[in-house]
Amino acid sequence: MIELPIEKAFTLIEPGPVLLLTTHDKGKSNIMTITWHMVVDFTPRIAITTGPWNFSYHALLNTKECTLCVPTIDLAQKTVQIGDCSGETIDKFKQFELTQLPASDVKAPLISECIANLECRVIDYVKPHGIFILQAVRAWIDPDKKDCRTFHAVGDGTFVGDGETIDLRHLMEDKIPFGV
Amino acid sequence: MIELPIEKAFTLIEPGPVLLLTTHDKGKSNIMTITWHMVVDFTPRIAITTGPWNFSYHALLNTKECTLCVPTIDLAQKTVQIGDCSGETIDKFKQFELTQLPASDVKAPLISECIANLECRVIDYVKPHGIFILQAVRAWIDPDKKDCRTFHAVGDGTFVGDGETIDLRHLMEDKIPFGV
Repeated sequence: MIELPIEKAFTLIEPGPVLLLTTHDKGKSNIMTITWHMVVDFTPRIAITTGPWNFSYHALLNTKECTLCVPTIDLAQKTVQIGDCSGETIDKFKQFELTQLPASDVKAPLISECIANLECRVIDYVKPHGIFILQAVRAWIDPDKKDCRTFHAVGDGTFVGDGETIDLRHLMEDKIPFGV
Repeated sequence: MIELPIEKAFTLIEPGPVLLLTTHDKGKSNIMTITWHMVVDFTPRIAITTGPWNFSYHALLNTKECTLCVPTIDLAQKTVQIGDCSGETIDKFKQFELTQLPASDVKAPLISECIANLECRVIDYVKPHGIFILQAVRAWIDPDKKDCRTFHAVGDGTFVGDGETIDLRHLMEDKIPFGV
């Protein structure tokens, strides 16, 4: 993993891929699958929605830290299975043979098999709507990954992989933040 | 356009496509482009992030209504151009040759050229984070559209079209809401 300038980190989240979210609470690392997320600003802040029915919810509130990890399409099956069991009873890193890497600024681990990882701090919880506001503080990317396609949840059990890239930069130069 | 059962409407938003958002304020319809959005619950509620620099922000606060419209890949160029100018000075429906259709429950129009449209009410504004919470009340879909691929913003001026569909329903039957 090499460090990605933090001002580019929002570009990992904005396309709406399925994400893995790691926490580290009470001496134990855990992973959840999350598709309800959005960029909130370019620094970047990222909003996610979850609730008390989710084991990681309590870790987010307790530790105020997490890592957002971007899986590519080869991890689609594992990602769905991770979302279909609970860290309350399962060591998901062991069960799904994923490798923890230490993060720099948070205790939640990076996932070595993911194409990118964002270390995040919880800066607010909007309780009526179940929305956590995260501040990403450091971003990492795997420069050697060959198939960089991420995938998107439809919500009915099907997923859509990334297809063709369309370059329309010439139509929106003035909207692109400096350095991106 | 035919009506889509409202419990299936979240599946239009969850994959994270670039959206168009229409408003109707002070006798005038307008369109903005939005990529910062997420599903918040299955009813569905949808969160979007915008701010006072955006002309539609004021219409959202004034009218408490909008329509979220899903453009397909053939509309990518227009969608970016719509996001690069302001409804304060331009009639975007006229400029971009898009067709307004009347909605059922809100004054904001549907866009005929989009593959789907969600009529929404603004039910909250989380001011510190610029997050609007929308309640979708009715959904419409065009059953005759041949190329249904949507597209996702990377944030650097490039976009990613939908690629292959992966069916993993058998791994998450218990997580799929009834009727979806």
